[in-house]
Amino acid sequence: MSNQEAVEIKEHSEKVHELDSLFKPKSIAIIGASSKELSIGNVILKNLVHYGYTGKIYPINPKEPEIRGIKAYTNIFDVPGDIDLAHVIIPSKFVPQIIEDCGKRGIKSVIINSAGFSEMGDEGIALQKAFLDNAKKYGVRVFGPNCQGIINTDPAFKAYCDFTFTFPNPGSISIVALSGGVGAFIMQSLFDLDIGMRMYASNGNACDVSISDVVKYYGEDDGTKAIILYTEGFSNPKEFMDVAKIVAKKKPILAMKSGRTEEGSKAAASHTGSLAGVDISTELIFEKIGMLSFSNEEEMCQASMAFSTQPIPKGNRVGIITNTGGPAVIATDELVSAGMQIPLLSDRAKNILKETMLPEATIGNPIDVVATGGGNHFRSALDVMMEEENIDSIFINFVTAPFTDTDEVARNIVEVSNLKRKPIVCNFMTNLSLERFQVTAKILKDGGVPCYSFPTTAAKAMGALYKYHLVQSRNIGEPENFKNVNQQNTKQILEKGKAEGKDFLTSADTYTILSNYGISVAEWRIANSVSDSVKAALEIGFPVVIKADAASLVHKSDLGGVKINIKNADEVKNVVEDMLQKFNTSDLKFFIQKFLPGGKELIAGVSAKQELGHLIMFGIGGIYVEVLKDVTFKISPVTKLEASEMLSTIKASKLLDGVRGEKGIHKESVIEIIQRLSQLVTDFPEIQEMDLNPIMAFEDKAFVVDARIKI
Amino acid sequence: MSNQEAVEIKEHSEKVHELDSLFKPKSIAIIGASSKELSIGNVILKNLVHYGYTGKIYPINPKEPEIRGIKAYTNIFDVPGDIDLAHVIIPSKFVPQIIEDCGKRGIKSVIINSAGFSEMGDEGIALQKAFLDNAKKYGVRVFGPNCQGIINTDPAFKAYCDFTFTFPNPGSISIVALSGGVGAFIMQSLFDLDIGMRMYASNGNACDVSISDVVKYYGEDDGTKAIILYTEGFSNPKEFMDVAKIVAKKKPILAMKSGRTEEGSKAAASHTGSLAGVDISTELIFEKIGMLSFSNEEEMCQASMAFSTQPIPKGNRVGIITNTGGPAVIATDELVSAGMQIPLLSDRAKNILKETMLPEATIGNPIDVVATGGGNHFRSALDVMMEEENIDSIFINFVTAPFTDTDEVARNIVEVSNLKRKPIVCNFMTNLSLERFQVTAKILKDGGVPCYSFPTTAAKAMGALYKYHLVQSRNIGEPENFKNVNQQNTKQILEKGKAEGKDFLTSADTYTILSNYGISVAEWRIANSVSDSVKAALEIGFPVVIKADAASLVHKSDLGGVKINIKNADEVKNVVEDMLQKFNTSDLKFFIQKFLPGGKELIAGVSAKQELGHLIMFGIGGIYVEVLKDVTFKISPVTKLEASEMLSTIKASKLLDGVRGEKGIHKESVIEIIQRLSQLVTDFPEIQEMDLNPIMAFEDKAFVVDARIKI
Repeated sequence: MSNQEAVEIKEHSEKVHELDSLFKPKSIAIIGASSKELSIGNVILKNLVHYGYTGKIYPINPKEPEIRGIKAYTNIFDVPGDIDLAHVIIPSKFVPQIIEDCGKRGIKSVIINSAGFSEMGDEGIALQKAFLDNAKKYGVRVFGPNCQGIINTDPAFKAYCDFTFTFPNPGSISIVALSGGVGAFIMQSLFDLDIGMRMYASNGNACDVSISDVVKYYGEDDGTKAIILYTEGFSNPKEFMDVAKIVAKKKPILAMKSGRTEEGSKAAASHTGSLAGVDISTELIFEKIGMLSFSNEEEMCQASMAFSTQPIPKGNRVGIITNTGGPAVIATDELVSAGMQIPLLSDRAKNILKETMLPEATIGNPIDVVATGGGNHFRSALDVMMEEENIDSIFINFVTAPFTDTDEVARNIVEVSNLKRKPIVCNFMTNLSLERFQVTAKILKDGGVPCYSFPTTAAKAMGALYKYHLVQSRNIGEPENFKNVNQQNTKQILEKGKAEGKDFLTSADTYTILSNYGISVAEWRIANSVSDSVKAALEIGFPVVIKADAASLVHKSDLGGVKINIKNADEVKNVVEDMLQKFNTSDLKFFIQKFLPGGKELIAGVSAKQELGHLIMFGIGGIYVEVLKDVTFKISPVTKLEASEMLSTIKASKLLDGVRGEKGIHKESVIEIIQRLSQLVTDFPEIQEMDLNPIMAFEDKAFVVDARIKI
Repeated sequence: MSNQEAVEIKEHSEKVHELDSLFKPKSIAIIGASSKELSIGNVILKNLVHYGYTGKIYPINPKEPEIRGIKAYTNIFDVPGDIDLAHVIIPSKFVPQIIEDCGKRGIKSVIINSAGFSEMGDEGIALQKAFLDNAKKYGVRVFGPNCQGIINTDPAFKAYCDFTFTFPNPGSISIVALSGGVGAFIMQSLFDLDIGMRMYASNGNACDVSISDVVKYYGEDDGTKAIILYTEGFSNPKEFMDVAKIVAKKKPILAMKSGRTEEGSKAAASHTGSLAGVDISTELIFEKIGMLSFSNEEEMCQASMAFSTQPIPKGNRVGIITNTGGPAVIATDELVSAGMQIPLLSDRAKNILKETMLPEATIGNPIDVVATGGGNHFRSALDVMMEEENIDSIFINFVTAPFTDTDEVARNIVEVSNLKRKPIVCNFMTNLSLERFQVTAKILKDGGVPCYSFPTTAAKAMGALYKYHLVQSRNIGEPENFKNVNQQNTKQILEKGKAEGKDFLTSADTYTILSNYGISVAEWRIANSVSDSVKAALEIGFPVVIKADAASLVHKSDLGGVKINIKNADEVKNVVEDMLQKFNTSDLKFFIQKFLPGGKELIAGVSAKQELGHLIMFGIGGIYVEVLKDVTFKISPVTKLEASEMLSTIKASKLLDGVRGEKGIHKESVIEIIQRLSQLVTDFPEIQEMDLNPIMAFEDKAFVVDARIKI
């Protein structure tokens, strides 16, 4: 751990205490508690009691002396003891005053269930600002408004500050969700799958305590082994990245972002009122900081079962043990699709199994112990797989054949699983409506063996464990800081451009900036006249390209402002004279550049994303970008590893290696161009868009031959 | 329906009766019934009794007077009444004699559970042949061996002839699975999901009654609304296609094939002993005959729930009704990904909803009735969606908010669903461990509303309904039978080639065959000498291509045997003289062909697949095929629609339309070349491989310019 990280974590720990009043309250005031059955003010109180909250509950209601048998208070000032947390369920217009009162009363955190704030237009926005100002005045942390609340299953607290109806068992998975609807069914799904939950938070409008704050808190919570996160986007992605990249190194964050399609993001926009537009940046955030991204919430929940009990595999090699053939075939398909391997067994292993297995068993990988195989057969297969050096994890297909002692099989699986040396997942095929198999299931469950009902589902969970191994082992490093750059001159050019009200920089300015940042460009000159142009062309050497250059000429290529492959002085003269006639603009200059035919055309681009920084794009020019849309994106600043991943992850990446007799390109040069481009836009966030199109790449070098900068 | 189809169906109906003794037995002899607890011979009897079999059971055991309280018989000849079905559980070596006895006794069908036959090498194969010969002698139909058996849930039979442990409720989904392990967990999954099952069959080695026979039987069974099929491949794909294409028109067949990956198919091979090699033909079979292909068995089971009760939508337009925001966003993403649309509501609809919805509701598509919305709000939204002309199906997100009358919501959903006018699926988010929500769930379940626990899962099920609409509406038509073909001459060439022991035909023979089948080829001549070659080139007109042509020259291009763009007689002379010197083979001839530069290079190919016919391949030449593997396949014979789908389904299909100033190609010509190629290999199954590489396609025509035929 670097010193900086240590400092950050220390800072987090200090901050964590602040949220303890929210997640670990010793006393809760319910402001708006109600005796009316099925009202939220009643449900909140009922849930808290029902779940066995260990602290003090103070219902606040001006009219009722007691609610559900608990003494109620007219207001928070009448409450005798300390109040850690206030749960507010009153109409929005009263909230600013109540927060003021909470501050005065020394309450540290409030959950505001009530709706009617920023999601409801100007009036709501004003109300939200009003109570938030009051909260800040007194240092009160606000959770919500327009939210569900929090749950802490820790037996020391049993804090159920939520109006939902799922009462989770304690466990090690913590959930954070922007949408309460999604958070609630994820929690319910964990409950249905018998996966224990640690904490839950759904923060609605998230005016103060953010998803980042919650993730940070879960990251520091020793009881949280893995985090499930659902979002429709981030209002402060940079803050989130800073927090989550530290947490993701320590524990898996299983994440899902919806609004993947245009229609979905429209639905999300009308739902949250805050985020719109299909964007790919959330997925890129997940990738950059090493979160596990899911597009199917059921798979995410199922995978969390494996994370809650199993170690992370050290590689992609799976040993399969089965007592029925077909499901092993299905599992193999899915495991291999997820990038895993099913290696051959060693002779050592085979020799042992020849002694221990039934004659009709298949000795290999998968090991088929056959349906009549019992506990000792499974055990031997498990022991062998545990000892195999080239096996990283174990996949079990276990059908409860009616003619075997299935409990004995389960006990053996648990004993081996308890060693926690290699992760185990089990596709457990049984009928849980039969008592005898309930017993078997309980043995596996109590033994912490993650059990699934489908081979594909189990294999996907194994795939998620492996994927976390991959993201954990992927160290993207730090962005390189190239020293030979001229920041000062670049700043002057951009300021001048801005001052002149330009959208796009001229070619001269653009190329100067590229040169300032050490981005290789084909040799160029700016010329003002015919004779200048000829001189420049002679200096550069033929063939050359000539481009008409003026602020007003954005699509110069379409207008006949670009001529390539000019081979001698006469041609230069003709072209420049022709352009002088065609483009009657006072600032017209001529951009003369070395013509470099025969390379591979590549494209790199940049676009600014509000709150996030820049996205960097890379692709192969021509139809690959324009027709096949074969491009890849990363969030800047990109490291060397990330830049090289951009070259290797486009679909047509093989073309860069050279195919069908063509030579490959000099990848190092292109990688460096991407890194320097990243450094440039990181230094100058005011750059809105930038295209290097094309970059001409050759066997031994690469040059930018056309570029555009929008400020 | 065509006359031929009518005849086929009539034939099927007659055959169906034969399998009634298997699926609807009035009496069953259990040969090998045992009093030993947990033995298969005991489990089979126990299951039959436990499930409430309505017919007569005759346990056969030479030593026991009764088993589980049922009178046993020494042998089948002692049994007093008729026996429809014998369930055989004795060691393999006794099976041939028992089948002989069954034949003599007039038993119509037998299920052979016992293993030890074709899956166990030569000895087993001999045993299997022996009993099969006996069965055929007496007309006994054999199910198995090495199989689980069958289940018929029809209350009139309640025949559970299987050793598994799931006791399904009657319903309308029938299952057929090669692998008993997979079949069993699919059956269990339907049970867990509370989906009723109609019949079940897992036929192991499938020596007589095949998957095709079972699918045909299910197709004719009025109680079967949809079929689930799992296989690792087909031993007789043609028979299967003939049967399944008729059934798939009548009812959905949800199908999954495993062994998709090389490793998976290896596992399948070691499992079934009969099928090996990754092949794509099973997926192509599913596509050709309109089956719904799944790669995830859980999704297949979940989808079957919708098929069991819902009508098929008439289009892709979905109306969404929700009482919580986030899950609607997730559902929208998945629905759109599955090719569906979420259309805007009409003004009529919006005006109604403005009156009926709560003020905080969102009126649009999705309609968000909000969590406090009750039965009347859902009802109005449902009624509106049912009336909307541009809505084909309805997706409901229903979270059981604790402060609403959820039963009332459920009743309203059921009332609208019962109209069966548009399919409804429901993502039902609740806690089934709470009694009050169990009641709500039961209302939905009894009302036949398919309920899911995840929005993505529900949306995928909706997607499957829509996909069946698509395959049902896709009429591929019949293959065109081009009349202007010379079958006779083609036959002679192929016979001559075979007689001469050739693997590849010469260019002359190859091009003659193409011409025989009306496949456009660039103009060509065969020349034997320098002067002949010059004469031929002059006739064709320059530029030309010259290829050295001899049986021994397969890779002539690599050997310098191909010269392109030859522009005059002198060049012809030099090239031919050079080739004469280089290739010192007595049968050397010169293939002179018009050189056609500037077109788009396409590739079509054919390869023979045992038992299936030919696969036809299409792609764009060069890197698209070689590097990007952008190719598509169909099973021959292909119809015009299928041939045109080949052009439109490659990833780079847009290139055929012309991009970046290039002209598009004449697709009709290419489609006709594919159809004629299909007709050629259908007429001559002895053609093993064929490549048309390249086909040069222009704006107004397309020509084959190189071809290869392997016989």
